[in-house]
Amino acid sequence: MIVEEKIKMPKGFLASGIHAGLKKIKKDMALIYSETECTSAGTFTTNKVKAAPVLYDMKIVGDKKRGIVINSGNANACTAKEGYENAVKMSSIASFETKCDPSSFYVCSTGVIGVPLDMKKIESGIKSLAETLSPATESLLDASEAIMTTDTFRKTACCTIKIGGEDVTLTGFAKGSGMIHPNMATMLAFVITDAKISSSLLKKMLGSTVEDTFNMISVDGDTSTNDTCLVLASGLSGAEITGNTKEEEDFKEALFYILKTLACLITKDGEGAGRFIEVKVEGAKSKMDARLLARSVVSSNLVKAAFFGSDANWGRILCAMGYSGADFNPDCVDLVFSSEKGAIEVLKNGTPIRFDEEKAKTILLEKSITVLCVLKDGNYNATAWGCDLTYDYVRINGDYRS
Amino acid sequence: MIVEEKIKMPKGFLASGIHAGLKKIKKDMALIYSETECTSAGTFTTNKVKAAPVLYDMKIVGDKKRGIVINSGNANACTAKEGYENAVKMSSIASFETKCDPSSFYVCSTGVIGVPLDMKKIESGIKSLAETLSPATESLLDASEAIMTTDTFRKTACCTIKIGGEDVTLTGFAKGSGMIHPNMATMLAFVITDAKISSSLLKKMLGSTVEDTFNMISVDGDTSTNDTCLVLASGLSGAEITGNTKEEEDFKEALFYILKTLACLITKDGEGAGRFIEVKVEGAKSKMDARLLARSVVSSNLVKAAFFGSDANWGRILCAMGYSGADFNPDCVDLVFSSEKGAIEVLKNGTPIRFDEEKAKTILLEKSITVLCVLKDGNYNATAWGCDLTYDYVRINGDYRS
Repeated sequence: MIVEEKIKMPKGFLASGIHAGLKKIKKDMALIYSETECTSAGTFTTNKVKAAPVLYDMKIVGDKKRGIVINSGNANACTAKEGYENAVKMSSIASFETKCDPSSFYVCSTGVIGVPLDMKKIESGIKSLAETLSPATESLLDASEAIMTTDTFRKTACCTIKIGGEDVTLTGFAKGSGMIHPNMATMLAFVITDAKISSSLLKKMLGSTVEDTFNMISVDGDTSTNDTCLVLASGLSGAEITGNTKEEEDFKEALFYILKTLACLITKDGEGAGRFIEVKVEGAKSKMDARLLARSVVSSNLVKAAFFGSDANWGRILCAMGYSGADFNPDCVDLVFSSEKGAIEVLKNGTPIRFDEEKAKTILLEKSITVLCVLKDGNYNATAWGCDLTYDYVRINGDYRS
Repeated sequence: MIVEEKIKMPKGFLASGIHAGLKKIKKDMALIYSETECTSAGTFTTNKVKAAPVLYDMKIVGDKKRGIVINSGNANACTAKEGYENAVKMSSIASFETKCDPSSFYVCSTGVIGVPLDMKKIESGIKSLAETLSPATESLLDASEAIMTTDTFRKTACCTIKIGGEDVTLTGFAKGSGMIHPNMATMLAFVITDAKISSSLLKKMLGSTVEDTFNMISVDGDTSTNDTCLVLASGLSGAEITGNTKEEEDFKEALFYILKTLACLITKDGEGAGRFIEVKVEGAKSKMDARLLARSVVSSNLVKAAFFGSDANWGRILCAMGYSGADFNPDCVDLVFSSEKGAIEVLKNGTPIRFDEEKAKTILLEKSITVLCVLKDGNYNATAWGCDLTYDYVRINGDYRS
């Protein structure tokens, strides 16, 4: 059973977050450090254009990791060979400053594309980070703040589970607001835990959990060059997780909780987002069909614009289901809109129901809306999360660079 | 050689367009009628949710057609069995009123989803349409006006070609503004011609031409329940087109001209569109890769929002190429922005070029922008068309139903 917690540091970890000068005023570099060697796993952007740090991390992912060095303000993407060399340097400097073996540190960057990193600032930044490492919660909050770009708030999640009488802590933090979409969009997410678990089992769990969490959110359909999700396990809780056990189930549930919480926070901070939209698909023929349907609805510009206008536009939802590529029977679809103000059914077996437009408006004016799509094709379910499409989205993205 | 023409009626065709009362004031029904039996072909929405008239047309498509009856204001979609019966009735009434064999008429509907057709208005509307049929250009303009929904202008195209000394005319008209996307989004397009050509050859040509025209435009990524493109050939010019001949090439070029012109007009009328964007991909490994890349760029919300802000944001373009699913080498990409004000290269071999931001701004402030993406992977090219993402798009789609 998961116990939701205020953010705290799992055993063996230290963190820091500082202003290194890549941004004008705000914190822009973070370091996560483990006192012992960690097992680890990562998932990375599927974009064909991968930033240098992603290429580096994909190469070193696995055992014997000691931490993560992160900068915001510059994505270190599309900067030719120099970019990769700089990513390697960042890892080396972090390893050197913390007296660890070379290549002990993952590297993550986020920010502007196509501009070379200022390595002087990066180097002195990492020194300061190493000097200010601390196990205090405050340090973790500094780190989670330092990775933000267009984010308007810090995104953190924490929970504990009991494994063999021991408390195991999982703590996550993430950044991301625009460009969020299935397949790991400009999004960095980190989970640190004191569980003892092999890198291979972590990898297996992370892959399937990311599929059901980060890959089910959509802000605008674009995936980025830098997306990375990393999990590091120090093992210092003493509790061991092995495959095909009750412990594995429990840990996976905890990991799902952390990643889902972070994913929803990212969605809520979607650039210009006014409303949080949850799309639940039930009774699909296969898991893939359920996922395709939920994502197609939550990603549709027309559906998103309708939610901006609090319009119970079931036609656009049915239409988005129709072009999703999923196999389903349109004549059997029920649709229900709900929020804290109640629920209203608008479609039954593919046919519109006469409904109270006033009641629908009241429900849809809320900040958090759920769309339930019930099929009668099978037993598979999926949930996707997104936000509405607003004037502010256009404004923010119309002048990002200028 | 194609001669572009002002709109005129091909031999043997008559048309009419009237107000039948489905909309409050504007024209809402159109009829196309041929004095002789036509060969014909059609392409239809790939959306799993297909409106009743689409299902009907797919069933009757082929030889011995006499015309098309069209209504706007109501899509006759998601209205259960009754919807299909009403589509059949529309065809029967049109056949009866024009003294043709039953099932001689295609049926197309566009407008609101989920509301049953008012068959009284439809029936008296078809009577009026039959009574006012005329070969005059003005009647064709009435028809092209009567099919509009959120369109802000009529969309027509016309050209002639010489086949065996005879003039062959191709005339097209279309509707569509929002929900335009690859795979035939809420879009109706009709081409009538006096060429003599078999339905099977028409079908073959139409399929591949639609792939390179209507399926390469994107306004917002949503495809609809009602999309239909129909071609009717009366044969009255006397000029015959047979397969694998110079005549086939010429006719195909003319058909491409008509459909491309209509597709670009639809894009220019994209809901809230401020700028027309053309994306050319050159040097791809395969036709499919070229198409995927061009469409991914033109469909990206972030790219579209950048064009709204006249921002030379090559990073978003490269990023959209990266997640397109196409195979290409990011390290070999050149990017050039151009408009009537000139051209500017911003990326060379995947690496940013220092460019004059002021000059870029001047180019991107124009109403019509071309993005050229040069790869060095092969010999395949593709072009896609779209528009920017604007405040008005959000406004229009935020209150469509209300």
